[in-house]
Amino acid sequence: MPLIVQKFGGTSVGDLERIANVARRVASRKEQGNDMVVVVSAMAGETDRLINLAKKITPAPNERELDVLVSTGEQVTVALLAITLESMGYRAVTYCGWQVPIVTDDAYGAARIYDVPKEAMERDLAEGRIIIVAGFQGVDGKRNITTLGRGGSDTSAVAVAAALKADLCEIFTDVDGVYTTDPHITGKARKIGKIAYEEMLEMASLGAKVLYIRAVEFAMRYKVPLVVRSSFNDHEGTLVTEESSDMEKESVRAVTCNTKEAKITISGVEDKPGVASRIFSALADSHVVVDMIIQNSSAEGKTDISFTIPEVDLGKGLEICRGIEEYFQAENINGCEDIAKVSIIGLGMRSYSGVAAKMFSALAREGINIEMISTSEIKISCVIRQKYAELAVRILHDVFELDKAT
Amino acid sequence: MPLIVQKFGGTSVGDLERIANVARRVASRKEQGNDMVVVVSAMAGETDRLINLAKKITPAPNERELDVLVSTGEQVTVALLAITLESMGYRAVTYCGWQVPIVTDDAYGAARIYDVPKEAMERDLAEGRIIIVAGFQGVDGKRNITTLGRGGSDTSAVAVAAALKADLCEIFTDVDGVYTTDPHITGKARKIGKIAYEEMLEMASLGAKVLYIRAVEFAMRYKVPLVVRSSFNDHEGTLVTEESSDMEKESVRAVTCNTKEAKITISGVEDKPGVASRIFSALADSHVVVDMIIQNSSAEGKTDISFTIPEVDLGKGLEICRGIEEYFQAENINGCEDIAKVSIIGLGMRSYSGVAAKMFSALAREGINIEMISTSEIKISCVIRQKYAELAVRILHDVFELDKAT
Repeated sequence: MPLIVQKFGGTSVGDLERIANVARRVASRKEQGNDMVVVVSAMAGETDRLINLAKKITPAPNERELDVLVSTGEQVTVALLAITLESMGYRAVTYCGWQVPIVTDDAYGAARIYDVPKEAMERDLAEGRIIIVAGFQGVDGKRNITTLGRGGSDTSAVAVAAALKADLCEIFTDVDGVYTTDPHITGKARKIGKIAYEEMLEMASLGAKVLYIRAVEFAMRYKVPLVVRSSFNDHEGTLVTEESSDMEKESVRAVTCNTKEAKITISGVEDKPGVASRIFSALADSHVVVDMIIQNSSAEGKTDISFTIPEVDLGKGLEICRGIEEYFQAENINGCEDIAKVSIIGLGMRSYSGVAAKMFSALAREGINIEMISTSEIKISCVIRQKYAELAVRILHDVFELDKAT
Repeated sequence: MPLIVQKFGGTSVGDLERIANVARRVASRKEQGNDMVVVVSAMAGETDRLINLAKKITPAPNERELDVLVSTGEQVTVALLAITLESMGYRAVTYCGWQVPIVTDDAYGAARIYDVPKEAMERDLAEGRIIIVAGFQGVDGKRNITTLGRGGSDTSAVAVAAALKADLCEIFTDVDGVYTTDPHITGKARKIGKIAYEEMLEMASLGAKVLYIRAVEFAMRYKVPLVVRSSFNDHEGTLVTEESSDMEKESVRAVTCNTKEAKITISGVEDKPGVASRIFSALADSHVVVDMIIQNSSAEGKTDISFTIPEVDLGKGLEICRGIEEYFQAENINGCEDIAKVSIIGLGMRSYSGVAAKMFSALAREGINIEMISTSEIKISCVIRQKYAELAVRILHDVFELDKAT
């Protein structure tokens, strides 16, 4: 019997009526002859409500206990969904993270899954039960409750699908699928029918919010076919799967834009060994995640180093750099929040030449200055002034004809 | 180091301010040099809120999943209390029912505790941590979440105290202790300083709401000294403990009143063997709990049987009796909700004679008719018309001089 894992986010289970909709959707898949596992998030707003309660007590709540607190959110949802399915005449059974168990490390608030034993779930499936798993949560080796951080329920769903070797993992969300770019930026944005894990991974890293990086990584590693679709209609979603020959036809699959980064420029630095190492070790020690790094070639023994970090970490980043300034004798250290990173992504870039040139000249034609460039095999990112962000997205979407289906 | 278990009910942890009060109370006991274990209930109203959510889906929610749902209530409270204590500089650690584990049978909604391993808690205590346990919940042998039913958190506290051989178990509630009778009925009601387990058990069975029967049974079996006191002041509470010589001085310790029972009378029954057995087996099979039973001596081969059951079960009880009526050929089957059971309780009854006579004549003087009588070694209960209930309590409280301290 085919096995399908379905994941429903907070808005899809936001009240009892929506939970009933989810139950009907699950039941209809079950009636079609599938084994069903459902992963759900906390009801919309509930996780924030709980975190706010804790923050009223102290701005820095104990991390272990914060996970104990917020993990109640999904526990409520699984129970309500199971009660609904049981009242409809289906046999359902819920699993909290510790009951599966979703075994994680002990990094409270951002734990990583390292094992999902399948035995208990397989027994329940064999008895015809619909399994409902609390997303976002796990348990460490010492029986402490952990949570997985942002997008955790997606990761739970993919991890469960991988463990059970599910035939399909459907991620239900509030959009119809993965788009060529953010439909709020251009009405020409088109839903992508099929996309490779690698492309999806780059998109998630570059600011597309539809799927979280870890979930895509997990799906790619265990080859779990993912479908992203809306819980509010029956439109076909986007299939995220292994690269296949019919995907190669386009050079660029999507355009993304991220305005949540900031740039730090350290200019007039002595060009001596160990400078970059010193700077980026100091940032790493303080858990500031550096994205792009550019170092210009040296002139007269001096060089400039620029890099981007999350906007929220700008103050911290500047403080760290200024704290070690004497070591590299910089002429200037500047921070700038007024940037946007615009990226094009596509497996096809590997075989098409001239993609980068086409991108740069499209931006140049509109007078958009490129401040930093970073490339990988399947993406090109440019940092520009933030005010040009939406314009750049529209231009690139047009230039690469992303509105046209293959 | 002395070990104290403290239990705080829903009103004592009803909001963040009250949780902070509880934290201060726990901390002050810790500062006095005690090892501390705290058991808490869900915040006032939370359990009802969750049950109502489930009941909106279906009047009869799946029992396993209802326990999954409502057990989130205490999980929220333990986390908030731990976060508060940690923010005050104390080391605290929470335990959900499954983490202790509080091992129970699988009777969802009314599970019985049969084991509380102490090893994990002892390790945390040895490291100086304040342990916070979610009351009301446990886990069965198959890792299903269970709840203990009414008064479950009291039982959790006593069970944890028994497992750890605590020096004291303090039950904090919204009253100052155990009273000679309900202070709402007579202003002469007096707080009892010290009471024996057996007396407390009778009081709990007979309608006193301050402690639940199972918690008292557990305390008696494992000889856990219990103190019942208010979480809103520092008044000394009531010590519930083993019988001691200084308790024997009074014949009667307390008067209770229960108006939540109903009476069924089956009159003109054939007086043949097996009738009572047939009736009470049928009731037991339907989980109707019978309290008092009276059978009058036979006249002309006919007899009358009266018994009391919970008021909520009256309809069910009558239906069952009428369903098997042909077997015993009754002349009449009547139900009556208009009754009250008034009881006097005291270990001293065993040695004083004339206590029963004193009770009956006090009621007779006021023209209160006694419909049923039931006695044990340490209590006498009379069923009377409900309208006389409060009057009877006041009379008996006066006659046995319960307002006077020993």
